Amino acid sequence: MASAEVGDNVLDGDPTIKALEERAAAVLGMPAALWTPSGTMANLIALSVHLQRGDRFLAPKGAHVLVNELGSAAWLAGGMPDPLEHDAGPGRPTPETLAAAIGPRSGPYFTLRTTLLCLENTHNASGGAVIPPHEHAQLLSTARQAGLRVHLDGARLWHAAAALGLPPAALTVGVDTVSACFSKGLGAPVGSVVAGSANFVERAKRMRQMLGGGVRQGGVLAAAALVALDRVGDLAEDHEKARKLAAGLADLGWEVNTPETNIVLARVADLEVTLASLGAQGILASTLGGKVRFVTHRDLSMADVEEALRRIKAGGHP
Amino acid sequence: MASAEVGDNVLDGDPTIKALEERAAAVLGMPAALWTPSGTMANLIALSVHLQRGDRFLAPKGAHVLVNELGSAAWLAGGMPDPLEHDAGPGRPTPETLAAAIGPRSGPYFTLRTTLLCLENTHNASGGAVIPPHEHAQLLSTARQAGLRVHLDGARLWHAAAALGLPPAALTVGVDTVSACFSKGLGAPVGSVVAGSANFVERAKRMRQMLGGGVRQGGVLAAAALVALDRVGDLAEDHEKARKLAAGLADLGWEVNTPETNIVLARVADLEVTLASLGAQGILASTLGGKVRFVTHRDLSMADVEEALRRIKAGGHP
Amino acid sequence: MASAEVGDNVLDGDPTIKALEERAAAVLGMPAALWTPSGTMANLIALSVHLQRGDRFLAPKGAHVLVNELGSAAWLAGGMPDPLEHDAGPGRPTPETLAAAIGPRSGPYFTLRTTLLCLENTHNASGGAVIPPHEHAQLLSTARQAGLRVHLDGARLWHAAAALGLPPAALTVGVDTVSACFSKGLGAPVGSVVAGSANFVERAKRMRQMLGGGVRQGGVLAAAALVALDRVGDLAEDHEKARKLAAGLADLGWEVNTPETNIVLARVADLEVTLASLGAQGILASTLGGKVRFVTHRDLSMADVEEALRRIKAGGHP
Amino acid sequence: MASAEVGDNVLDGDPTIKALEERAAAVLGMPAALWTPSGTMANLIALSVHLQRGDRFLAPKGAHVLVNELGSAAWLAGGMPDPLEHDAGPGRPTPETLAAAIGPRSGPYFTLRTTLLCLENTHNASGGAVIPPHEHAQLLSTARQAGLRVHLDGARLWHAAAALGLPPAALTVGVDTVSACFSKGLGAPVGSVVAGSANFVERAKRMRQMLGGGVRQGGVLAAAALVALDRVGDLAEDHEKARKLAAGLADLGWEVNTPETNIVLARVADLEVTLASLGAQGILASTLGGKVRFVTHRDLSMADVEEALRRIKAGGHP
Repeated sequence: MASAEVGDNVLDGDPTIKALEERAAAVLGMPAALWTPSGTMANLIALSVHLQRGDRFLAPKGAHVLVNELGSAAWLAGGMPDPLEHDAGPGRPTPETLAAAIGPRSGPYFTLRTTLLCLENTHNASGGAVIPPHEHAQLLSTARQAGLRVHLDGARLWHAAAALGLPPAALTVGVDTVSACFSKGLGAPVGSVVAGSANFVERAKRMRQMLGGGVRQGGVLAAAALVALDRVGDLAEDHEKARKLAAGLADLGWEVNTPETNIVLARVADLEVTLASLGAQGILASTLGGKVRFVTHRDLSMADVEEALRRIKAGGHP
Repeated sequence: MASAEVGDNVLDGDPTIKALEERAAAVLGMPAALWTPSGTMANLIALSVHLQRGDRFLAPKGAHVLVNELGSAAWLAGGMPDPLEHDAGPGRPTPETLAAAIGPRSGPYFTLRTTLLCLENTHNASGGAVIPPHEHAQLLSTARQAGLRVHLDGARLWHAAAALGLPPAALTVGVDTVSACFSKGLGAPVGSVVAGSANFVERAKRMRQMLGGGVRQGGVLAAAALVALDRVGDLAEDHEKARKLAAGLADLGWEVNTPETNIVLARVADLEVTLASLGAQGILASTLGGKVRFVTHRDLSMADVEEALRRIKAGGHP
Repeated sequence: MASAEVGDNVLDGDPTIKALEERAAAVLGMPAALWTPSGTMANLIALSVHLQRGDRFLAPKGAHVLVNELGSAAWLAGGMPDPLEHDAGPGRPTPETLAAAIGPRSGPYFTLRTTLLCLENTHNASGGAVIPPHEHAQLLSTARQAGLRVHLDGARLWHAAAALGLPPAALTVGVDTVSACFSKGLGAPVGSVVAGSANFVERAKRMRQMLGGGVRQGGVLAAAALVALDRVGDLAEDHEKARKLAAGLADLGWEVNTPETNIVLARVADLEVTLASLGAQGILASTLGGKVRFVTHRDLSMADVEEALRRIKAGGHP
Repeated sequence: MASAEVGDNVLDGDPTIKALEERAAAVLGMPAALWTPSGTMANLIALSVHLQRGDRFLAPKGAHVLVNELGSAAWLAGGMPDPLEHDAGPGRPTPETLAAAIGPRSGPYFTLRTTLLCLENTHNASGGAVIPPHEHAQLLSTARQAGLRVHLDGARLWHAAAALGLPPAALTVGVDTVSACFSKGLGAPVGSVVAGSANFVERAKRMRQMLGGGVRQGGVLAAAALVALDRVGDLAEDHEKARKLAAGLADLGWEVNTPETNIVLARVADLEVTLASLGAQGILASTLGGKVRFVTHRDLSMADVEEALRRIKAGGHP
């Protein structure tokens, strides 16, 4: 970061941001990419570019764009959301559910227009659940046949790729746009991208400036993101730690998910009591959908996981 | 209409519109009411006044504000909608479903805020289904305890009242605002109201002007609506016609709802073929949610219903 | 109105509204027209269709879309307005002022985009001032060369036509869209139109529905508007009454404009005192931009104007 | 930056960002402050919090919020702007102009509401022009008496303070909110603040999250901004360089402003030719309002300015 070559990224461009955008586009299998200060802004830009006033869009229940972005998909991007059931598995609607939700393609002038499908891989609210490639392909096919655009919220796409043993670009096949984060599991301090066609990125750049996401010498942040991208392969280790943690918790009688990536969700009797007790033992956890949420990451070793399990056992939880 | 006393309703008020607003407020059991050119605008005004940017609001699946208003609840009023299951009956969520959807009342600053429940009585997409008063009371109580405001889309409230044998005001207990239509089943050519507190109506009047719903000598329309209000009691006859039609169709082997009010929904093998054939026989029907929709009204006699059944029988449908 | 043939104008169309839309389109010299409940909504629809988020638009200072529509051109239609000086005369910018305001056509991605000119003929805030055809042509030419679209707020276009002795269509040459009112000077109780290409009207119809401007049996209103259109030629008499009034007031020492159409503006020492006193004498006047505003119309005879002048003289104003 | 203590600034806070926010609030004389990724977002947040849908706001012609933020003050914050003449000097309206623009405080329900004054000190489009404290006080007094809120765009407030020899807090007296940038003249790579009451900052934090301006370990950026704040006093040197440059250009026959801070604006015969020629000589300049814009800063020495003048003289410009 200290040695990053920088420039004014609002005006004439910052070379390190440009390098990051090019590399991210390549890794994601998209023609072009745009740096944003957050994944929330990356999604917001994509939705704002795709949606016309009042257009209906579909996303799995609990999607980040539905529940974690303060309603900006509606009030700012202008979309009328409709959540899809997870009837194919955690975070995953079936193509039949999608097709039924899309409904008939034509109708009189006063018909609500469905124009966008927004997928999320991995699906955070479902505990980092992965969409398998063949299901992705079926959903894409259904959406495309109905004339929908597709945005993929890939804040955690790196984890899906690591879990499946596939390159990230294998998971963006057919989408119009994809967002991805360099912070979170990848470990860079700040920054995300939204990727799509060159024309999309042109429009996205303007929308980023409108939202106040244009920054000056952002290369100091992009430099860290470039390093983070080198480590995508390491994420499988974080997933192993999560499985270790989940298995250990299950042994202690906790009701936990079988983690597909790096998120462990546990249902407990009293959320606040459990969180307070974990905190007192030096174990950082948060909440998600009424459950305790543990996240494993690169700064946490397997030994740390074991130590956490020891403390939890000693503490007599949940 | 021809003899209505009128004035400029944007500037100093139109006496016939004022009289209608006062009478409608009284009939609906609300402190004040505001005339609007449509029920869509009445709902839009209510949502715009109630919602802050990004506020989450809840409404039964298929509600008019969700599917029949071109997304304006989201892009214009600024709300992030979340549809509720009909697990208590057609158009009716249980209080438990409502409570679960509301979720915890507090949270960190970046929490989506749920601030509004939007009910619809009768529920058009469910075939004019009525919310019974005790369920209304339970839903209101649940919403109130969670600090939500409540708007009632009462475009067809007159029908719910007639079906229950109650005055309309009995069905608005505890709501903040209610909209109601003078066209549709009531038979006036144009016009609706949105009713609430005096302060609400003050703000609603400003929003109506913003949307371009302020009209000049609207008294010519209000005069017809005043006549329509006299006939609310007659709606029970329309419901009888609907039951007659549904029973007749069932006898002919159609799969129909048991109409609670004046809407009959029929599931048919081929929607387009059936509609075309009905049209050829001089029977006007439309579609709703993939079904054939028949509506009975004051300009249709019981004999007309019988004649329609005769023609349908002769036509060999569905 | 009582004998108007009507239909459901949201669904399958109301024949009298259709007839009015066709006639209005012809009179305005445009391919198609759409009925709206108000002139404010007609303008709002046009701006919403023309403007993309954040597009800059130009309008003469004091234009109705700038000061009389509660900011909806900005918050709802999404435009960033920039008012033009009246350096060619009341309500009229010069082509040079317009060209300077448009600025350079190209620029980097973060450049504010100027895409629309909004004219107003006659210009209400300037006392019903008329844009002469040759100035209109020059402004249109300047706007067109810069790639701008042009909307004409013609709420009072009938007056401009009558004052110039030209058909209304002569005053819409080259514009993309025009709005016009059947209420106000034309005397119908409720209703306006917005006219443009068939494609524009298609989009406008959808926007009207979004705003809640779709009505059911609006033919009762359209019937009155059709009668009003027959009387466009009579407006010259109203202008003569206005000149009579202005001349009489000037004789009494009032500081008044020389009315080009049917609006007389008078600067007085104390606005509230004068209005109260006029009211006490049975003379209806309002305020506009800090002045007293008198409007002459068909329900006011030349004798009424003379009587008003007698009363004002007796009252010792201003 | 490398040794900054960091945390997750979306969730539980980043200590270095907190330290920066506290220090910035103190320096600006405000109760609290919020970090944002850009000055554009800082202004957008302030306007979004202050304005209700359609509220009119006033700002000097050419203000950043009017011309450099892609219309977001209108379409996103929802304000209807009205630009003020610079009749007291560059970038500075007189209190009389302000009072006249505010207009009467009361009016009927359909009156456009003026609720905000947005000042800019220094005023970029006027060449970094400074608002003197007594004029600031008069404008504030006029705005306050009319019940307006006041936001100060202080992206370049540090320069105004340095030019006046006053602490920045002396220039925010009476305002509700102020934005300020750590990039630009102050030299940090990325980041701004918006400051106001604790309640304002609470609402601003939510709006920042909505816009996607919440970042994770932003402390790496805040660390640089803390260093930048130490150097506010050095800006006077940049102003001296600007005066040197302007005097030198004037000696060469250029038509330039008398720089009050660090911006030199020059009117030239052919903007593109001049910029190309300057570029060929290794002199970086941009354009603003049809003029050439030079900016002096800490990475440019007095000797660099002299060298630039030598090259320009040799090049024979303008």
